[in-house]
Amino acid sequence: MKNKIYEELVERSKEIQRYQGILTLLHWDQETCMPAGGITARSEQVAQLSAFIHEQRTSRSFKALLNKLVYINTGRPKVKHLSRTQQACLREWSRDFWRATKLPASFVKTFSQVTSEASQIWAMAKKDNNFKLFAPFLKKIIELNQQKAEIWGFEDHPYDALLEAYEPCMTSQRVSHIFDGLEHEIKHLLNKIQDAKKIDHRFLQKTVSEEKQKEIGKWIMSKMPVDESYTRLDISSHPFSMAIHPCDSRITTRHVPNAFMSNIFSVLHESGHSMYEMGLPAEQWGTPLCEAASLSVHESQSRWWETLIGRSLPFWKHHYPELQKILPSHLQHVSLEQFYRAINHVAPSFIRVEADEVTYCLHIILRFDIEKRLISGKLAVQDLPDAWNAKFKELFGMTPPTNAQGCLQDIHWSLGDFGYFPTYALGNILAAQLFVPFAKHHPNWEEQIKKGDLAFIREWLKENVHRHGRLYSLDEIVKKVTGKPLSEAAYCHYLKKKYSEIYHLHDVHHGQGEKSAAARLH
Amino acid sequence: MKNKIYEELVERSKEIQRYQGILTLLHWDQETCMPAGGITARSEQVAQLSAFIHEQRTSRSFKALLNKLVYINTGRPKVKHLSRTQQACLREWSRDFWRATKLPASFVKTFSQVTSEASQIWAMAKKDNNFKLFAPFLKKIIELNQQKAEIWGFEDHPYDALLEAYEPCMTSQRVSHIFDGLEHEIKHLLNKIQDAKKIDHRFLQKTVSEEKQKEIGKWIMSKMPVDESYTRLDISSHPFSMAIHPCDSRITTRHVPNAFMSNIFSVLHESGHSMYEMGLPAEQWGTPLCEAASLSVHESQSRWWETLIGRSLPFWKHHYPELQKILPSHLQHVSLEQFYRAINHVAPSFIRVEADEVTYCLHIILRFDIEKRLISGKLAVQDLPDAWNAKFKELFGMTPPTNAQGCLQDIHWSLGDFGYFPTYALGNILAAQLFVPFAKHHPNWEEQIKKGDLAFIREWLKENVHRHGRLYSLDEIVKKVTGKPLSEAAYCHYLKKKYSEIYHLHDVHHGQGEKSAAARLH
Repeated sequence: MKNKIYEELVERSKEIQRYQGILTLLHWDQETCMPAGGITARSEQVAQLSAFIHEQRTSRSFKALLNKLVYINTGRPKVKHLSRTQQACLREWSRDFWRATKLPASFVKTFSQVTSEASQIWAMAKKDNNFKLFAPFLKKIIELNQQKAEIWGFEDHPYDALLEAYEPCMTSQRVSHIFDGLEHEIKHLLNKIQDAKKIDHRFLQKTVSEEKQKEIGKWIMSKMPVDESYTRLDISSHPFSMAIHPCDSRITTRHVPNAFMSNIFSVLHESGHSMYEMGLPAEQWGTPLCEAASLSVHESQSRWWETLIGRSLPFWKHHYPELQKILPSHLQHVSLEQFYRAINHVAPSFIRVEADEVTYCLHIILRFDIEKRLISGKLAVQDLPDAWNAKFKELFGMTPPTNAQGCLQDIHWSLGDFGYFPTYALGNILAAQLFVPFAKHHPNWEEQIKKGDLAFIREWLKENVHRHGRLYSLDEIVKKVTGKPLSEAAYCHYLKKKYSEIYHLHDVHHGQGEKSAAARLH
Repeated sequence: MKNKIYEELVERSKEIQRYQGILTLLHWDQETCMPAGGITARSEQVAQLSAFIHEQRTSRSFKALLNKLVYINTGRPKVKHLSRTQQACLREWSRDFWRATKLPASFVKTFSQVTSEASQIWAMAKKDNNFKLFAPFLKKIIELNQQKAEIWGFEDHPYDALLEAYEPCMTSQRVSHIFDGLEHEIKHLLNKIQDAKKIDHRFLQKTVSEEKQKEIGKWIMSKMPVDESYTRLDISSHPFSMAIHPCDSRITTRHVPNAFMSNIFSVLHESGHSMYEMGLPAEQWGTPLCEAASLSVHESQSRWWETLIGRSLPFWKHHYPELQKILPSHLQHVSLEQFYRAINHVAPSFIRVEADEVTYCLHIILRFDIEKRLISGKLAVQDLPDAWNAKFKELFGMTPPTNAQGCLQDIHWSLGDFGYFPTYALGNILAAQLFVPFAKHHPNWEEQIKKGDLAFIREWLKENVHRHGRLYSLDEIVKKVTGKPLSEAAYCHYLKKKYSEIYHLHDVHHGQGEKSAAARLH
């Protein structure tokens, strides 16, 4: 239905999104192209534009328009004859407005100042393995997050308020429930794998020249079912994906000299994020309907391409011969099976970002546990290293030799991000659960991938996930596509099936756990 | 002197400059990195941010602050105890404000719409050699420029009002006077050169691979006396230089497969622009004192490095052996002298951007003549091709075979830029005139360059030109540095001396013209 006030809201929202896209470019440039000397000027530009965008988002005039059509606190419309998409936009605008205005300006400023300093201190503390240096900043950040939780409000646990900012569907109780099942299954699987014969993967650690790395990055990028005129690939110290618009969605990779697969998996992972952004409905650009549903949903898309596809046998059946040609001295005497097993070898490690598929979620489960205890006040910052190491020992059976390889390894807390980590594991879980109806819809998916076809996969994701933007929540998407609520079952089933084959673990694959998971799946 | 209103103006000005820097990045990215699909979103971002910046620059609140300290129409201060730099800032702010507000908003909008469409039409017209397609747009643009001139006001000639926007010091009468002398001397020199023995330069046209072009670009860039952490080199279809800040000043070059010197001269030219921006006083950033004095002064810096240094024998004495090593199959059998003469060979051509040093200014003289006639109404658009070709014949002794190689070759008019071209020639002239005191101050300059030292040149330019920003006008800089008003004498002297040697023209070098020019110089 045509509604003048609604149209005006759309125009205002588009204007803000244009500035947001410009801000994205400032960040992209800073990480990829900017000469080092430009950093001071860039920081000032970012601060100024961010503040301006915040002003626009929280302006009285925007609120006045919104107020005419919707109850901002609840997102329920005040007027009739609004279309379903209009109602969804009003609901999401209200949610964003409420979150952006609920925190007092003075709080936002303090939070920004503390985390800006803390992230620099964290980098030094990690480098020097000096937890005490970072501790007072972390303490302050936790206090600020506790205040944030109080301001935003919660029912059961203050952590819920923080979690909700990244994944609106989740509470810590629901996450706990999912993670408990996951932990049990992974530990069981991991025990079996650790008893099995080790897989030789040393050939993956041979040095690869910068030139070859570039070639590999371009090569794997060219295999993605993506129109090259909408994207580009650059190099940065941490790979990322950034979309200025569905038609301008860029990714980066990294070149680790003795880990060329890191380059390949980065391109696959970031392409997954990027394809989600490209698949959002461009005709709704400027409104929440052309934005990702949540961080977990975003992560499901990246992990889908990186792991479910990019670490699968059919994928490499098609692409391995070409990779052998690019890296003959590394791979000419390595069979496809050797290669496939090596890129999927499982080995508990201290560092999350280097983790294999099986142990990855244990790293998240650890952080989820620690974060909840820090936010509830049950764990004091000074006791964090001991708590981290104890929990790590419990989950992985080993103890980090340093805090740099332990509780200081991730940047997230220094940036003030508490409640973010669970979305990584939820993304894995969601991807596996979505894969079940995908495989049902495309029973020959393995054959098609073996032939080098990947476009049909993207089309399915576009149809079932991308095109909805924020029209549906994570819960609604899962229900709509899989007919069930989000659960770890499909992911556990996937891990057990895949790694039983790779490690020849017949007992696990046919064990009790698997049967019950399979029962829930079909 | 501390002045609260002045301080506030500085803060406002800095804020605007930050947005201006962001706008510069949008343009830079569009020409270098942006995926093709991003163009629509980018155009909208640019339009929105440009309009916002214009609003800020012309706001009532900015005017109110300015009005308290200065008479905006004249730039004269209203209050006492202002420092020299404060007075200069107020003068330049007033000038900018006056220019930005004098044109009615409706006029600015029309101008922007017409030129936006016209530049696209121009590209088609040039491609298809179809002047009639472009003619109605050019007619409209000329009418708009005539209106602009009326609004801005002028004493003698409407062209003066347009010229002043690019070069505040100049009137068409002064330019005519300088160009008349220049034309006379160049024609005389060109006649002699055309009678002399031709120089073989075919080895410069041998194809060079993309990879080698990249190596050449990086190599010549690394020779510039520039801190790499403040700049970067990219590839674009038309080379340009763009500064976001004195600490982030980027350049581009182009790769023409059968003209590798185009790559080298582009890097030298754009580095000259870039070093000017880097040499502006960063402590004054955000005010007009950290901006270039004028387009002519800017062009003097690029041409200084491209021609006076980059086409000189001492420069290549040092660098040629390295270039030979990069391109052995092209250059190993070419002596330094052959190379030096080839890169300076003179041959009238139809295209301005491909012109050699001697004929370059004739292309500008042609455009200056045509522009004046178009703006005064003495030349009708429909008669432009004939007028262009007739004047071309008069200056170069040949007639362009097509309008694409004639009056349709440059983009400037389609963008609405009338009065811009003269600054290219004025830049050449200024560079040569500044070179005289430079050479006096560094009598061993040739020896130093032969040793590979270029830093002392940049230092001299920084001291005498860059660090002043807009504190001094072109006229004031020339007077201050050379003790004389701007004149073509030094440039003519330079051309005659250099090209008499290259073409062995003893009679020109010792002829009447040279003596009188030399007499004026010393």
